[in-house]
Amino acid sequence: MEQLKGFNVAVVGATGAVGQQMIKTLESRDFPISTLTLLSSKRSAGTKVQYKDKEIIVQEATPDSFKGIDIALFSAGGGVSKELAPHAVRHGAIVVDNTSAFRMDKDVPLVVPEVNEEDLRKHNGIIANPNCSTIQMVVALQPLKEKFGLSKVLVSTYQAVSGSGAAAVEELNSQTQAILNKEAFEPKILPVKSDKKHYQIAFNAVPQIDVFTDNGFTYEEMKMINETKKIMHADDLKVAATCVRIPVATGHSESVYFELDNDQVTVEEIKSLLADAPGIVLQDDPSNQVYPMPADCVGSNDVFVGRIRQDLDVKNGFHMWVVSDNLLKGAAWNSVQIAESLIKLGLV
Amino acid sequence: MEQLKGFNVAVVGATGAVGQQMIKTLESRDFPISTLTLLSSKRSAGTKVQYKDKEIIVQEATPDSFKGIDIALFSAGGGVSKELAPHAVRHGAIVVDNTSAFRMDKDVPLVVPEVNEEDLRKHNGIIANPNCSTIQMVVALQPLKEKFGLSKVLVSTYQAVSGSGAAAVEELNSQTQAILNKEAFEPKILPVKSDKKHYQIAFNAVPQIDVFTDNGFTYEEMKMINETKKIMHADDLKVAATCVRIPVATGHSESVYFELDNDQVTVEEIKSLLADAPGIVLQDDPSNQVYPMPADCVGSNDVFVGRIRQDLDVKNGFHMWVVSDNLLKGAAWNSVQIAESLIKLGLV
Repeated sequence: MEQLKGFNVAVVGATGAVGQQMIKTLESRDFPISTLTLLSSKRSAGTKVQYKDKEIIVQEATPDSFKGIDIALFSAGGGVSKELAPHAVRHGAIVVDNTSAFRMDKDVPLVVPEVNEEDLRKHNGIIANPNCSTIQMVVALQPLKEKFGLSKVLVSTYQAVSGSGAAAVEELNSQTQAILNKEAFEPKILPVKSDKKHYQIAFNAVPQIDVFTDNGFTYEEMKMINETKKIMHADDLKVAATCVRIPVATGHSESVYFELDNDQVTVEEIKSLLADAPGIVLQDDPSNQVYPMPADCVGSNDVFVGRIRQDLDVKNGFHMWVVSDNLLKGAAWNSVQIAESLIKLGLV
Repeated sequence: MEQLKGFNVAVVGATGAVGQQMIKTLESRDFPISTLTLLSSKRSAGTKVQYKDKEIIVQEATPDSFKGIDIALFSAGGGVSKELAPHAVRHGAIVVDNTSAFRMDKDVPLVVPEVNEEDLRKHNGIIANPNCSTIQMVVALQPLKEKFGLSKVLVSTYQAVSGSGAAAVEELNSQTQAILNKEAFEPKILPVKSDKKHYQIAFNAVPQIDVFTDNGFTYEEMKMINETKKIMHADDLKVAATCVRIPVATGHSESVYFELDNDQVTVEEIKSLLADAPGIVLQDDPSNQVYPMPADCVGSNDVFVGRIRQDLDVKNGFHMWVVSDNLLKGAAWNSVQIAESLIKLGLV
């Protein structure tokens, strides 16, 4: 616990892939911090983490770790959030939770600041950070919904391995090297560590992210469907998703088809709208081969949009390609951004 | 030119990625061959290729290479086909062309035997083999169209690098190794060798296959749209495509949304229909994590279908995941299969 100035902030899951990005993002945003408490499982406690010019020792997260904390950023798995977030709230902290534990709870705002920042006012101590693949899509869709009305969304994702954590990235790298060396390997983590079977991810495409639900969609796909409706306040929006893991370390890509309520909209109007929208960088110039790619977006907080084109059969139908760093806008940055919004709105 | 029995067969582009697979497929199918003539560019002429227990020397393809040839399988680029296919026809050969040179020519049948074998009867010497990503999709869609009627198709592809040839696979492998070694590299081939810019494919997703057309779709996407309508005899079918290259060596995957004319169809009926359909292997058991993946389909002539599920908003809308070896059913096997159909129908 180091003395700085501003708010008392805790990061739960400080040694994980997202936790590390949260700490970097707090630093790069020069977040107004009085004390920074880094928490983890018992196993990772004792790790030293650099924050600006200080070295902070990670402590084991317990129900009483949150005494005096103003803002607690959770990213240590749904189980940890379910157990410890209520204790953080009991101690007076506002929790920004990056797991799926509370996302669909009707008393918990599910927030992407570009889309529904005002929902923060209704919080009861816990604010949920949406699923990574959902966040980047709603950032791109919200300006279209606001200006033209939005009736339908069909998305196919190309998701990076870091969404499953640092160990999954290590599995991608070691498996890739084994295949290049023509050596044997045994998949142990992807597609879902806790599921029965594990499959090769290197040089492969795996159409399973999270476990399957009874309707044939995976939980990841149902998250995209349900969270999109909740964040955009659009219960009647038709949404469908196919979520696929590909051999990319970081950066989710999405092929998005959408239909607007207005059938007089042109591609140029959409490009012009998105070029000026918050959190979006338009990269759309096919004649110069300009379009977003995950390898280019790593390290940026923005959502990159390109390949916008009108459907050839449906006048109000359009296609676009949306890419973002899943660890930043998809997780760490959106969480820190929520915390910044809480300060801006005087809610903390 | 080796004496065997049956037909006089020529393979043009014999040293390329698809040509090599054509020769292997002719061998594995025990195609009735009297003589096998292997042709290539001047640069590759002289290469020795094993066919069964014979060694065949590849010769330079010239207008007079086709004297006495019954069936000529072309896969050496559109330019070579445009130049030499008419000479092959002049010499009395039937050409099965794997390039895009003649596909949309109204006098040239575009054939996937499971879908429109009878179109072969209308040939005028040249038969076109469709684009790889189109073939696997129409094999999966045709039984649905025949039984239930098909009105709309939206596809996002996850395409393998070998669709751009053997040099592109080498670029994927060497670039991947360079990234793992943290070494510099310079993309030179993908996404399109002849286009202005080249991008990283290793650990990336590139939303460009072939060059762009004026409507914002790429030629690859327009091939999927136009060829699907031609093969399925469905001018009114609504089709849209987003084509994306991913770091997979071989095996194209496709996320396909489709709408049927009949809104009383169940997922079970679709699964049962596709399980018995020609050229299809159904791999669809989510509770046991059974679904198709490119790493599993390499080397097979079949089209693998899974993840079939009903849309949650559109009663006659369904999603599926279609995977196939792009060098086999997507190219070499479909070409040899066309040749087998020509023999079966007494057309050669």
